Amino acid sequence: MSENLLEKLKQYGASDFYPLHMPGHKRRISPFGDPFAIDITEIDGFDDLHHAQGILLEAQRRAARLYGAEESYYLVNGSTCGILAAVSASVARGGRLLLARNSHRSCYHAAFLNDLRVTYVYPPSGKICGSIRPEDMREALRRHPDIQAVLVTSPTYDGVVSDIGAIAAEAHAAGAVLIVDEAHGAHFGMHPYFPERALFCGADIVINSLHKTLPSLTQTALLHVQGNRADREKLRSYLDIYQTSSPSYVLMSGMDACVRLLKEQGGELFGVFVARLERMRDELRRKLRVLRLVDKDALIYDFDRSKVLISTERCGMSGPKLAAILREKYHLEPEMAAADYVTAIMTVADTQEGFDRLTAALLEIDAALADGMKGALPFSGNCADMAGSAAGMRWAEYPANEEVLTIRQAQESPSESVSLADSAGRVSAEYVYLYPPGVPLLVPGERISEELLQRLARERDAGLALRGMADESGRAIRVVMEATEI
Amino acid sequence: MSENLLEKLKQYGASDFYPLHMPGHKRRISPFGDPFAIDITEIDGFDDLHHAQGILLEAQRRAARLYGAEESYYLVNGSTCGILAAVSASVARGGRLLLARNSHRSCYHAAFLNDLRVTYVYPPSGKICGSIRPEDMREALRRHPDIQAVLVTSPTYDGVVSDIGAIAAEAHAAGAVLIVDEAHGAHFGMHPYFPERALFCGADIVINSLHKTLPSLTQTALLHVQGNRADREKLRSYLDIYQTSSPSYVLMSGMDACVRLLKEQGGELFGVFVARLERMRDELRRKLRVLRLVDKDALIYDFDRSKVLISTERCGMSGPKLAAILREKYHLEPEMAAADYVTAIMTVADTQEGFDRLTAALLEIDAALADGMKGALPFSGNCADMAGSAAGMRWAEYPANEEVLTIRQAQESPSESVSLADSAGRVSAEYVYLYPPGVPLLVPGERISEELLQRLARERDAGLALRGMADESGRAIRVVMEATEI
Repeated sequence: MSENLLEKLKQYGASDFYPLHMPGHKRRISPFGDPFAIDITEIDGFDDLHHAQGILLEAQRRAARLYGAEESYYLVNGSTCGILAAVSASVARGGRLLLARNSHRSCYHAAFLNDLRVTYVYPPSGKICGSIRPEDMREALRRHPDIQAVLVTSPTYDGVVSDIGAIAAEAHAAGAVLIVDEAHGAHFGMHPYFPERALFCGADIVINSLHKTLPSLTQTALLHVQGNRADREKLRSYLDIYQTSSPSYVLMSGMDACVRLLKEQGGELFGVFVARLERMRDELRRKLRVLRLVDKDALIYDFDRSKVLISTERCGMSGPKLAAILREKYHLEPEMAAADYVTAIMTVADTQEGFDRLTAALLEIDAALADGMKGALPFSGNCADMAGSAAGMRWAEYPANEEVLTIRQAQESPSESVSLADSAGRVSAEYVYLYPPGVPLLVPGERISEELLQRLARERDAGLALRGMADESGRAIRVVMEATEI
Repeated sequence: MSENLLEKLKQYGASDFYPLHMPGHKRRISPFGDPFAIDITEIDGFDDLHHAQGILLEAQRRAARLYGAEESYYLVNGSTCGILAAVSASVARGGRLLLARNSHRSCYHAAFLNDLRVTYVYPPSGKICGSIRPEDMREALRRHPDIQAVLVTSPTYDGVVSDIGAIAAEAHAAGAVLIVDEAHGAHFGMHPYFPERALFCGADIVINSLHKTLPSLTQTALLHVQGNRADREKLRSYLDIYQTSSPSYVLMSGMDACVRLLKEQGGELFGVFVARLERMRDELRRKLRVLRLVDKDALIYDFDRSKVLISTERCGMSGPKLAAILREKYHLEPEMAAADYVTAIMTVADTQEGFDRLTAALLEIDAALADGMKGALPFSGNCADMAGSAAGMRWAEYPANEEVLTIRQAQESPSESVSLADSAGRVSAEYVYLYPPGVPLLVPGERISEELLQRLARERDAGLALRGMADESGRAIRVVMEATEI
């Protein structure tokens, strides 16, 4: 009841647990000593992020040069505030946004704050969600000529990259601003092994989390802008609104150290990293018999290979079960467990030991699964026992819900709580997320269908967490009062 | 051109410069080692701030117990996000907010985001801005029965506290939620030498910056809530929106360490601190002949004595000049320089050496000023040479501007840039701030008067920075196109 957060973090940091997750520095690449020793306020000579003219302006320009952006802004409130600012600056209140449905919840929050009408484009259904198709974008833009901005997540949490060049062409032909949530792709363009960065494919505004895949402290990000489609004055004014007026010099100096490291040693660091990564991927590709390394497929335009996705679908083991074995038996802490796969995030901060431990663990688990002999398993239970969600949950298998109200209208309408099981036909006043990765399966203002309810029940049975509902048990949902429906 | 932010911070931290400014840990009280070693993501066992059920829920409950709140929330995007969330949750879109005009710009941003109509209450004019008067609040609430929330800053950046008990009574009698921006008063209630905390005076929502006056990292804050007037569900949903989905464990563990330190050693730390502080204040009160220690006056309900304000008005030296002498000759870095005073922030992290250095420096400068002999001055120039703004700028001397449009209407209307000198009679589309402390002298939607323009010119002549205008030189201002004025 009185666990000490700092002590627990220190103990964890000193343990032999190996991080296969964010942040990208992996607790190893650090330019720091005690953060308190360098934590100051906006004193003489240290500039002011909200009115940068000196050392912070230079630092942001250094980031822009590294990324090839015309301008880059430091974000100390994560990619979240970059998304909110980019959308707020690009779509007028009440205007229309074209949004890839597999987007982070901050994109939906931006739509809520600005009372936007939202048109969704759904990724095609594959083993994991596929890339957003430019032709679907074109069709949506044709149907809704009032779309002012297009927002696409590329790469996704799974590493799936869309054809930003083609999407940019569609968006620009329709007069819309293209915003790319590239939070998970801050390392793109640092080595040819990784996909091209969205900025070089024609995106107008791009948001990169520095901490996810690069050696920078959690909560740090960059917003890049280029060209004359984005309204830079509005963008700056919204960044001023959505970020604290007391930005942390610890976070900011960590960002600058990251940018400098990449500029000075990026080539060498990425050379070593890519060699280790591809060696591991090659070995897993060749040797895994039951588990499977996920790779690019026909529905994926491009794929970020620093995301190591291990699919359990061929043995019926659940993702959470595989994650638990990696954590408990091997002290390898994965980034994420979905219904039938586990994600490990590898970065330049990973050691050869980390690659070796992950490779050895996966091969050992795979061998035991392949043998199929209960006694020989390096963990309790056998394949059949561990079957959680053999069918696997894939977000793209979800129905496209009917939109009845905007997000804002639904959230501000009188609502009532009903049993989730009895909610078919009603209009939701809440989100329902599957977490991770936090993509909403139901958005306020959408009608709840029988098909959706069946899916949700299946996810819960598979042990995945449904979030967003005020009722923490996930049994009840707030719906708009029927008289209010338009 | 290529200054290294981290190296510059390290050098500064290792220098003999003494901080009389935020953050409250003064680079001295640190529970940390390398922050990268404890910077993780939401892995197993470490909870999730946006859905806290474990160690982060416990940590927030610990903070609530320390402050006597029913619930407290960690803020990793500073008090800024707490203000945005509190207002967004308390006033419906398009509703009316009663705001003390000497509020932080985040309060104005909250009004903008929610398209609020704003009624202002102005503090009385004194040497520094006085306390907000409950009778002015009552009058405003009577004139505007549609006011849904009242937002007051107490203490101000200058340490001025208002009678929150009486203001709470007025707000509650009118059916409004009382939000107190107590960002600068996180140490209130920790020792009887300091004012009572707003939470104990009946405020519904209180926001405290932890870093400003307590030993916690910059950008950390708490939002407290009590009673049934605040809509807690909405509050949580807005905190979810305005804060990154990747909150920093470095910031959060620093908050928990601060709360634990205060719980375990707060009595002792504050006992020593108050004794040192009062000894210094007493000495300055008795010995200063030309400079003057600012204290409570008739217009001030209560005053936070941890803010050491040194007035230069009796010698005509400007505040910035005194700050420069403290910085350059004595290596004492003040928090803020206004036209005719300098602010030093003292906290539990200050050493006896810090108190001694500040006392000795002020007495030495004062003696030289009193002697008035150029040769004897410990710095170049004499009193007359240094006269910057003998009249002194006091925000409360500004005219109350006529409101023509709401902030949002003005910022979203077509606008044009005109010379500031020619802008009298027009409706502003921009803010004009005096920085520090960042309180707006002109708000979008207000008409620009001749009197205001004269004041602004005087501030600029006194060397103070005018901010907020897109034209960085401060010579031009964006005004609403005349056809748009309603």
